[in-house]
Amino acid sequence: MTGPVLVIGCGLIGTSVALALREHDIDVHLDDARPANVEVAVSLGAGVADPTTDPQLVVVAVPPAAVGETVVKALRTWPQAVVTDVASVKVAPLGVIRTSADAARYVGSHPMAGSERSGPMAASGRLFEGRAWAVTAHETSSPAAVGLIHELAGHVGATVVDMEADTHDEAVALVSHLPHLMSVLAAAQLGGAPAGHLSLAGPGLRDVTRIAGSDTSLWLEILKGNAAQVTTLLRSVRDDLDRVIEGLDDDQSSLVSVLDRGREGNAMVPGKHGTATVAMATVFVQIPDKPGELSRLMSDTGESGINIEDIRIDHDLGRPVGLVEVVVEETYAENLVNALVGRGWSAYR
Amino acid sequence: MTGPVLVIGCGLIGTSVALALREHDIDVHLDDARPANVEVAVSLGAGVADPTTDPQLVVVAVPPAAVGETVVKALRTWPQAVVTDVASVKVAPLGVIRTSADAARYVGSHPMAGSERSGPMAASGRLFEGRAWAVTAHETSSPAAVGLIHELAGHVGATVVDMEADTHDEAVALVSHLPHLMSVLAAAQLGGAPAGHLSLAGPGLRDVTRIAGSDTSLWLEILKGNAAQVTTLLRSVRDDLDRVIEGLDDDQSSLVSVLDRGREGNAMVPGKHGTATVAMATVFVQIPDKPGELSRLMSDTGESGINIEDIRIDHDLGRPVGLVEVVVEETYAENLVNALVGRGWSAYR
Repeated sequence: MTGPVLVIGCGLIGTSVALALREHDIDVHLDDARPANVEVAVSLGAGVADPTTDPQLVVVAVPPAAVGETVVKALRTWPQAVVTDVASVKVAPLGVIRTSADAARYVGSHPMAGSERSGPMAASGRLFEGRAWAVTAHETSSPAAVGLIHELAGHVGATVVDMEADTHDEAVALVSHLPHLMSVLAAAQLGGAPAGHLSLAGPGLRDVTRIAGSDTSLWLEILKGNAAQVTTLLRSVRDDLDRVIEGLDDDQSSLVSVLDRGREGNAMVPGKHGTATVAMATVFVQIPDKPGELSRLMSDTGESGINIEDIRIDHDLGRPVGLVEVVVEETYAENLVNALVGRGWSAYR
Repeated sequence: MTGPVLVIGCGLIGTSVALALREHDIDVHLDDARPANVEVAVSLGAGVADPTTDPQLVVVAVPPAAVGETVVKALRTWPQAVVTDVASVKVAPLGVIRTSADAARYVGSHPMAGSERSGPMAASGRLFEGRAWAVTAHETSSPAAVGLIHELAGHVGATVVDMEADTHDEAVALVSHLPHLMSVLAAAQLGGAPAGHLSLAGPGLRDVTRIAGSDTSLWLEILKGNAAQVTTLLRSVRDDLDRVIEGLDDDQSSLVSVLDRGREGNAMVPGKHGTATVAMATVFVQIPDKPGELSRLMSDTGESGINIEDIRIDHDLGRPVGLVEVVVEETYAENLVNALVGRGWSAYR
């Protein structure tokens, strides 16, 4: 990739791509229907606002519903450029783009990165490092165009996952859009609940409802853009929901089967622990909920020299003491407990 | 509380209560239908296996479905004793217990603590510290009995939350049972998915499906024991689900309203960040996914002297680099980034 690169749409993702490319000294030009977004992105060092006459690559980072049209226009405007987009759905825009005579120069992509924040101010050139970057070449995508998008993903530090557009949309419906809606459905029931009810809430509620706080208008576009796949899954969920209701009322076998399938699905979720061949153990540590204690625990835990696999913190229920769960290999758990107790912590497993 | 205390049921909760009371030098006697459980609990120092003739307090910690009958028998067997239980549903057992002439000596309770593990081997005398402990006095509970259960909760380090049995069951249906089922329903859809689909999974899927991995038989009893409350909520969820499906197909206003209600519910979940009056910022730190790096980061973060509010780790997607999110007060974020970059980390906000 030699540049220049034109980024159309200076929101969180577009500006972050631009910043990452600037770190490789690639010339980046910025465009956005809202001049204020371009100004912010330029001020962050994401590139220049001048139009370019001959981009090597155009990255379309506009809202999902505008992607197809914007890509087609870009293919026509810059007849030498490879064009990609970063939208979270791929079939719907491809339906529009496929009709273009220049579709060979288009390759879809979807970086699996985001933030509960949005806009150029939230951008970072590191946003994609260590994340998956789905590349959805279609039947007429040229190998050179595909290669350039692979290079783009590599430049920003992401790991390429090649898949077809319809497989992609089916996959994100399952691992992203459906979990989002289930989180929303759980959170939506909380409205109007007496405050006392929430005093019994634990980490489970917080985990399940965390992603329900995201922006409504963005998710509306994402879900509408993948409506067919999402609807298929939701109908399947409704069947399971009816099985659960039936099982609560009467024959419990239908409830048991759904609970069992949930356990099986849980075990399929990629996770260091789920896939680990080494047994893990959780060490619980109490921390007084006052400034500096968590930092002190981090320091003491780090200095124990025992490799930490994961950490969870549950310190937000308005109680005087919080609880930190430190996950380590089973064989080291006792050592960690002893090391922390030796430093004055209340630790146990 | 002077003891002796009789604990009936030496599983995770019963044995943990016993261990916590032993730390206060209170005599604890243990009973369980499975003698092996008693043996394990005794070996952990949770008390003695000998029956007691005159317990001051009986803690019934048997499976939910057996609670009512076991409490009634305990009230009859020990006519001076206060009796409580620790089951996660309160109305159904109370319906049985209320018929007893001795119901004044019964006070229900429900410690909001648990573990994905079960059995006496997983017990800890610290299990309840910093947790909520719901106390569900009924209309004829004697003040002395209620006072003793408050004392019990205090002895084990928990914070008392007084509520009526039906309010309790409504609350746990909302903040525990429903989120559990939504997690199960999301996870259950993963069965049969191609492995490639899961390669696009992010932290959202993991959070939503985490609690779906719990024990089926325990949850079957919990859900059946609170079937009426749970069913009411599930019917409401089904109505919302139909609104979402309708909104995906046609008029999107019904989808928007559910997404908006999800955001509102999300904001109601107790959480240090949600309720904080101070603005928080997230600092992202990349960690090579190899042994010792997370420990080193913990150590360096702790030594920065900046108060850490929360930490999230996303390092399990089979990629070479993991990402740690460190939440600090907005005003300290830049300092933390500088401190970590100064120690060689790739940190940004």
